[in-house]
Amino acid sequence: MPLYTPPTTDFQFLLRDWLALDAHYEKLGIGDFDSELAAEIISQGAKFAVDVVAPLNRDGDEEGCKLENGKVSTPKGFADAYQEYVANGWNAMLGSAEYDGQELPYTMAVPVHEMLNTANLSWRLTTMLTESAVLAVTKHASDDLKNKYLAKLISGEWTGTMNLTEPHAGTDLSLLNTKAEPQDDGSYKITGNKIFITAGDQDWSSNVIHLVLARLPDAPKGVKGISLFLVPKLLLDENNEPAKANNVSVGSIEHKMGIKASPTCVMNYDDATGWLVGEEHQGLACMFTMMNDARFQVGLQGLGAAEASYQGALAYARERVQSRAPQGVQNPEGKADPIVFQPDVARMLLTQKAQIEGARALSLFYAKHMDIEKLGSEDEKVQAEKVLQFLTPICKAYMTDMGLETTSIGVQVFGGHGFIREWGMEQLMRDVRIAMLYEGTNGIQALDLIGRKLTRDGGDMLAATYDAFNALVTDMSDAENKALAQGLLDDWRASSADCLGMDATTAAAAACDYLAYTAYSLLGVLWYSMADTAANSDNAVLASSKQKTRDFYIARILPRRDAHKAAYCAGPDSTLAVAGSEFDYL
Amino acid sequence: MPLYTPPTTDFQFLLRDWLALDAHYEKLGIGDFDSELAAEIISQGAKFAVDVVAPLNRDGDEEGCKLENGKVSTPKGFADAYQEYVANGWNAMLGSAEYDGQELPYTMAVPVHEMLNTANLSWRLTTMLTESAVLAVTKHASDDLKNKYLAKLISGEWTGTMNLTEPHAGTDLSLLNTKAEPQDDGSYKITGNKIFITAGDQDWSSNVIHLVLARLPDAPKGVKGISLFLVPKLLLDENNEPAKANNVSVGSIEHKMGIKASPTCVMNYDDATGWLVGEEHQGLACMFTMMNDARFQVGLQGLGAAEASYQGALAYARERVQSRAPQGVQNPEGKADPIVFQPDVARMLLTQKAQIEGARALSLFYAKHMDIEKLGSEDEKVQAEKVLQFLTPICKAYMTDMGLETTSIGVQVFGGHGFIREWGMEQLMRDVRIAMLYEGTNGIQALDLIGRKLTRDGGDMLAATYDAFNALVTDMSDAENKALAQGLLDDWRASSADCLGMDATTAAAAACDYLAYTAYSLLGVLWYSMADTAANSDNAVLASSKQKTRDFYIARILPRRDAHKAAYCAGPDSTLAVAGSEFDYL
Repeated sequence: MPLYTPPTTDFQFLLRDWLALDAHYEKLGIGDFDSELAAEIISQGAKFAVDVVAPLNRDGDEEGCKLENGKVSTPKGFADAYQEYVANGWNAMLGSAEYDGQELPYTMAVPVHEMLNTANLSWRLTTMLTESAVLAVTKHASDDLKNKYLAKLISGEWTGTMNLTEPHAGTDLSLLNTKAEPQDDGSYKITGNKIFITAGDQDWSSNVIHLVLARLPDAPKGVKGISLFLVPKLLLDENNEPAKANNVSVGSIEHKMGIKASPTCVMNYDDATGWLVGEEHQGLACMFTMMNDARFQVGLQGLGAAEASYQGALAYARERVQSRAPQGVQNPEGKADPIVFQPDVARMLLTQKAQIEGARALSLFYAKHMDIEKLGSEDEKVQAEKVLQFLTPICKAYMTDMGLETTSIGVQVFGGHGFIREWGMEQLMRDVRIAMLYEGTNGIQALDLIGRKLTRDGGDMLAATYDAFNALVTDMSDAENKALAQGLLDDWRASSADCLGMDATTAAAAACDYLAYTAYSLLGVLWYSMADTAANSDNAVLASSKQKTRDFYIARILPRRDAHKAAYCAGPDSTLAVAGSEFDYL
Repeated sequence: MPLYTPPTTDFQFLLRDWLALDAHYEKLGIGDFDSELAAEIISQGAKFAVDVVAPLNRDGDEEGCKLENGKVSTPKGFADAYQEYVANGWNAMLGSAEYDGQELPYTMAVPVHEMLNTANLSWRLTTMLTESAVLAVTKHASDDLKNKYLAKLISGEWTGTMNLTEPHAGTDLSLLNTKAEPQDDGSYKITGNKIFITAGDQDWSSNVIHLVLARLPDAPKGVKGISLFLVPKLLLDENNEPAKANNVSVGSIEHKMGIKASPTCVMNYDDATGWLVGEEHQGLACMFTMMNDARFQVGLQGLGAAEASYQGALAYARERVQSRAPQGVQNPEGKADPIVFQPDVARMLLTQKAQIEGARALSLFYAKHMDIEKLGSEDEKVQAEKVLQFLTPICKAYMTDMGLETTSIGVQVFGGHGFIREWGMEQLMRDVRIAMLYEGTNGIQALDLIGRKLTRDGGDMLAATYDAFNALVTDMSDAENKALAQGLLDDWRASSADCLGMDATTAAAAACDYLAYTAYSLLGVLWYSMADTAANSDNAVLASSKQKTRDFYIARILPRRDAHKAAYCAGPDSTLAVAGSEFDYL
């Protein structure tokens, strides 16, 4: 597979030109940041992703992880790359300055995250989960816990994990039964088994800080009785250095379809010592504060894998010579033409490109709103949070569904060679498949969108999201395309408003198709907007490409929107009618 | 994963009731066959698939194949299962009676093939390729070659392989350069390298008969200069027993995404002795006589894997208890309801079921036309062949695309567990992915459909296919649904006719979307027809299920047809406009 070339031109266009980054930073009062610095950070991140992380990807898949004598080891080179990442400060990009974080704007960090995902989904995953742990601790832990743990989680000296799932409690966390017994010294004894714990142990860091959902003895039933605990692998001594082993062990590691270089652990807690994070019985709320970010980050995995697949497929299509193109000989010196000239191959490549660049625009639009949520005026924060809440399940589900579709296209462009491991195309498909499942399956995302985000407060998040996209449309110069974008956006709002009155069953049956309908609609608006900005770009190739890719998206991808709308508008009856032995005649 | 339960009820309904098998056999003059015998053969085939082949599937994936000292070994139990298959006569189901084959109708063999695929895609593949070799030899080889090789290929004492692809010649066989030098004794010396050769060697059979495409010294350039040769692994002695090793060796075996239990070999021919099959320079035509069957068989792999995934997902959805169903408590004794009651899970299961049963109907409709092509009157044969030619790329591409979609849904229904190898759901996705690639990628199938099948002789195959489906509609009893089916079919014919005048470039850009449009349209017609027949079934559960699943298909799957039509009707411009560095701004 060809070396990864980070899409720095596209990042620069989207940030500086399309999202007007300099004005954005100025407005938020962080004018010491600008698009030049963003370009520099992205360029350094690109170098790290390409030189350090990407080369470990294929071998990591073949080697996998091991559990021996209770210790997890990751593939050769993974730990060293992590040390370098930490030493260069990458882990601290977003952490609070109070605990030695850099507090970079999200609009600078998100491109780096995308590139790390493209380079190596398995490797990136551990740092992603640590960032989630940092968010939860920052927001909810006591000062004492923060002082002990936060700086080292932010720097990356220690890593973090999220422990939610139990064998019988996945989507439905109300069923979880890990127990927490209060102790006289204010700590708790945690006992239970957790599964699917990413980097539950590894050979990267000197301690692992587990955030664990458990129930107190007097807890109410259901999700209202869940509390969050911080449980370190090694208990700290009086100097806050890792010392004595806690009663936490890795029961086994999973054998998986992909992300084989990321250890997915079964964790056993046996009277392990932990401390409460946040209020008693408020564990799920604590988890949800970091859920937007974690789900968005999983969406970025879909995008990252898609980009890797596109680059591989494009390079191969340019090199692979087979048959003549029907529109005329392209390579008169050769016996055949590069397959990139075959219309059906071009269709495949553009189906990748149009969705990848659309998703990248969506992710940076999301990042911009994260900046605003953090630094804007009170009104702006409230509005930005609504937009983020609404877009989170869309980013997570659409971008990971798209990740599978596009990585499968990458395999297809390679023909039979795509199925052979050494080319690396099939690994992308296997790796990205997990992203549709974890942090809430894509079906759960769709239920979150239609059942909570869309309907809450009479469609308040819908209105905020409409306004945010409408601002993009309002800024467009080309009248004809502006009208088309407006029509697309207004259609979507009207259809969405029609869903507000749905009962829970109808909404559940409609959920996935409504989410896809929404994603394809909003990506269409983003394409109109991007192409409009690109028309004024000084990069003539990019300007032309964005116009043409918009045309492809509108002509050949956007029609999916109508199929999804027709499907969910058909109502729940046909979905709920089949029952019992009608599924299998047995 | 739960044990596989063959869909014998559905087979029996489709064959006896829907396709009126008894009248069909009577009409073809093979009244000694009937639907009772079909049921018995299917039942025995089901037993073999479930008891012998299915248990090898998971371990086979983990163990994989090995090449040691030039010899290929397959996973434990695979060779024994093959011996039993051969001993029980299954390999000879379709072979010519003249060479001790059973000449069963295709309508009896195809269900057995589907079940073998469901049980174990890797295992089935070797016998599938042998059947292809049998077809090529039966149709094109000299009597001398037939007398030496055919009976043992039909019985399965020896296996067969197809050697087309070379490293630089995949889709474009005109580029192949394996050489064949004529010898004085009428044989040829074959020299060259072939890749992606399924079961190029194994530990199952006492000889392997390779069918190899190569060029004679005086061959015209391009595809018109390719000839077909029979090259045995072991040369026969005067008693026609395998004796001396031929100059054929396995260079390596591929490390693949899936079908790991099937050895995919690099074959080296170094002055290997072979014999011409068919006329000189007519090798590609010889290959094409078996292409319909081989491509259809690959389509059956998509269906087979889909069925396995559906059964796994359905069983899990019935057992897995998580959350309450929005339509009301379904399991009052438990803390939560089985997820099969979640509308979104039902949607996923029905997206599998509606497509699987539609594809099964398509495959048996195809099998019925294979019977007619073999045994009908001259006119009927001609018509049936047109229908088969037209439907072949649809069966291959749609049923394998559907195989990937549905096996991915199966993973999704399992949530995170779907990603774990031991559950077997992810293996189905990995295994079936190859079916979109081999025997001509699905893009090539689409080009074959729109560029050759649709347009040849002014739409002659289109007309024959329309007539065949129209006969199903004509037979319907329910007037309302009959009108809907007629409308759907006539719409499809009209849209197809609109494609007849397309130039080659427009057709190439439209191909995949036209194929999908056609597949979803025709499956809709099949669903109307099946449900109509089912209304009179004495199996009330099946009758109700078919009506309801038809409703689901029409409401929630058929709308995809419109998206694909809109995409291809948009024309080729947006697909061809992006060029050069516009793909990546570099």
